[in-house]
Amino acid sequence: MSLLTVGTVAFDSIETPFGKADKIVGGAATFIGLSASYFVDRVNVVSVIGDDFPTTVLDDMKTRGIDLEGLQVKSGEKSFFWAGKYHNNMNSRDTLDTQLNVLAEFDPVLPASYKNPSHLMLGNLTPAVQMRVLEQLESKPALTIMDTMNFWMDVAWDELLEVIKKVDVLMINDEEARQLSKEYSLVTAARKILTMGPEYLVIKKGEHGALLFHGDRIFSAPALPLEMVYDPTGAGDTFAGGFTGYLAQGGDIDFEKMKSAIIYGSAMASFTVEKFGIERLAELGQDEVQRRVKRFQDLAQFSI
Amino acid sequence: MSLLTVGTVAFDSIETPFGKADKIVGGAATFIGLSASYFVDRVNVVSVIGDDFPTTVLDDMKTRGIDLEGLQVKSGEKSFFWAGKYHNNMNSRDTLDTQLNVLAEFDPVLPASYKNPSHLMLGNLTPAVQMRVLEQLESKPALTIMDTMNFWMDVAWDELLEVIKKVDVLMINDEEARQLSKEYSLVTAARKILTMGPEYLVIKKGEHGALLFHGDRIFSAPALPLEMVYDPTGAGDTFAGGFTGYLAQGGDIDFEKMKSAIIYGSAMASFTVEKFGIERLAELGQDEVQRRVKRFQDLAQFSI
Repeated sequence: MSLLTVGTVAFDSIETPFGKADKIVGGAATFIGLSASYFVDRVNVVSVIGDDFPTTVLDDMKTRGIDLEGLQVKSGEKSFFWAGKYHNNMNSRDTLDTQLNVLAEFDPVLPASYKNPSHLMLGNLTPAVQMRVLEQLESKPALTIMDTMNFWMDVAWDELLEVIKKVDVLMINDEEARQLSKEYSLVTAARKILTMGPEYLVIKKGEHGALLFHGDRIFSAPALPLEMVYDPTGAGDTFAGGFTGYLAQGGDIDFEKMKSAIIYGSAMASFTVEKFGIERLAELGQDEVQRRVKRFQDLAQFSI
Repeated sequence: MSLLTVGTVAFDSIETPFGKADKIVGGAATFIGLSASYFVDRVNVVSVIGDDFPTTVLDDMKTRGIDLEGLQVKSGEKSFFWAGKYHNNMNSRDTLDTQLNVLAEFDPVLPASYKNPSHLMLGNLTPAVQMRVLEQLESKPALTIMDTMNFWMDVAWDELLEVIKKVDVLMINDEEARQLSKEYSLVTAARKILTMGPEYLVIKKGEHGALLFHGDRIFSAPALPLEMVYDPTGAGDTFAGGFTGYLAQGGDIDFEKMKSAIIYGSAMASFTVEKFGIERLAELGQDEVQRRVKRFQDLAQFSI
């Protein structure tokens, strides 16, 4: 089993009702990698940074089994930067600043040892970059999972559909599912999206949990009700990392297994939002993960 | 076991993106009674109508085991009327018209045979009327359940708190929980509300399911993802009726039992929204209810 992911390794400036954090470490691949590293020994990361990125963080990532051979470092350039402000309800946010920097010309290059992943997680990036990763594979992964966002539906519709065609699992939020399918009902939206390529669709609903669709089957996963959501940034990527990491541990892929993966992904995401950036994820112990997953079971199980 | 409910028996005019229905039968006690009648042989209803209410509907209700001895009929007066229009997302609606009519001077009177209910469901009404029902009881019910709405928080805060003090289970939606507790986080809101009287708090979240709070325990119930929500009117009351009806079948009340009651309530509500008004609920068979509850189990169960 080997897990490959592509995504940003970047800086975020974040403002929430509970505080502010200036230029902290973020990025989809950072959250995916850290989250997945709780399940597998090695996570191969393809990404790009400038020479402004702290080497201590890179060292920490390596210590956790994140392989950075596929991480390009552009000297004299700056890392991707995003600044955003969350509203009171934490479900919506305004982008205050986006500086593409190294991402503007990002051409992902897969080291030879990355070219036959068993599990591939395409983090949210321009569809052209996601496709470039797919093109460099020497064998078809057992499972390809893809995240994307509304922005690419607005500016790169055709390229996006080409990537979606090639993946097994698509992960988007409820609004994105509606935009992609042009349907309001999530059930109808899911049915349509499942004809576009993916066999599984995960619809993320933030504080309302997640839905998994596969054929005519539906699974509804709860979110852990939290006293305080400190910073939702990276929750979706952490979910994706936990989901993929859990599956990359091996075993057959079926609906039941996918359900468990969603619970593990949700549990990981519930940690991320408890502190700013990667802080909570980086300090996490294995026993905490297991206890959190147990809480999801207590939360959702009933008998009739 | 005996179930008593108080609430409106009324007319609604409803506009949704899928159609319009003029002056159809509605009202909290109508939905509560019909829903509860799938679980118990007899539901005692306290309410008031004018002489404009169709006797055929009253006869149908009686056939289903709904006792109407507590239903006052005011000759020469009109029944309560509400008109509303739902927005595209079905989660928000505008009230177009409210005609209190018989409700303006409603003084609930409990027949002698109603005065010792084992289970009492106080439907959404002015807190003063809910209190008048409590005052006429000869013995404390095993369980008192209460529904209310934001409107009473705006106009009858003190009276509302007095009723809340006396109930075992409070059922409100997420926005109402925030308004009542003055807290944004539902976990913090629930903790506060559980000091106001009720031992159990049910927070209804519409298409996102429901949360049950009791001490430090939380249960998250899914909603059934539906292809089409035709008319959400009465869904909350149907939920309350199924919840109370299930519990009124007997047995000890504990957290596990409450969880099951929420699933039964949710299953009943999922029928109501499939057609306008009481149409779907009135035609429902016992086997359909059992199959629907089974779908909730398939939807939410997982192993880790």
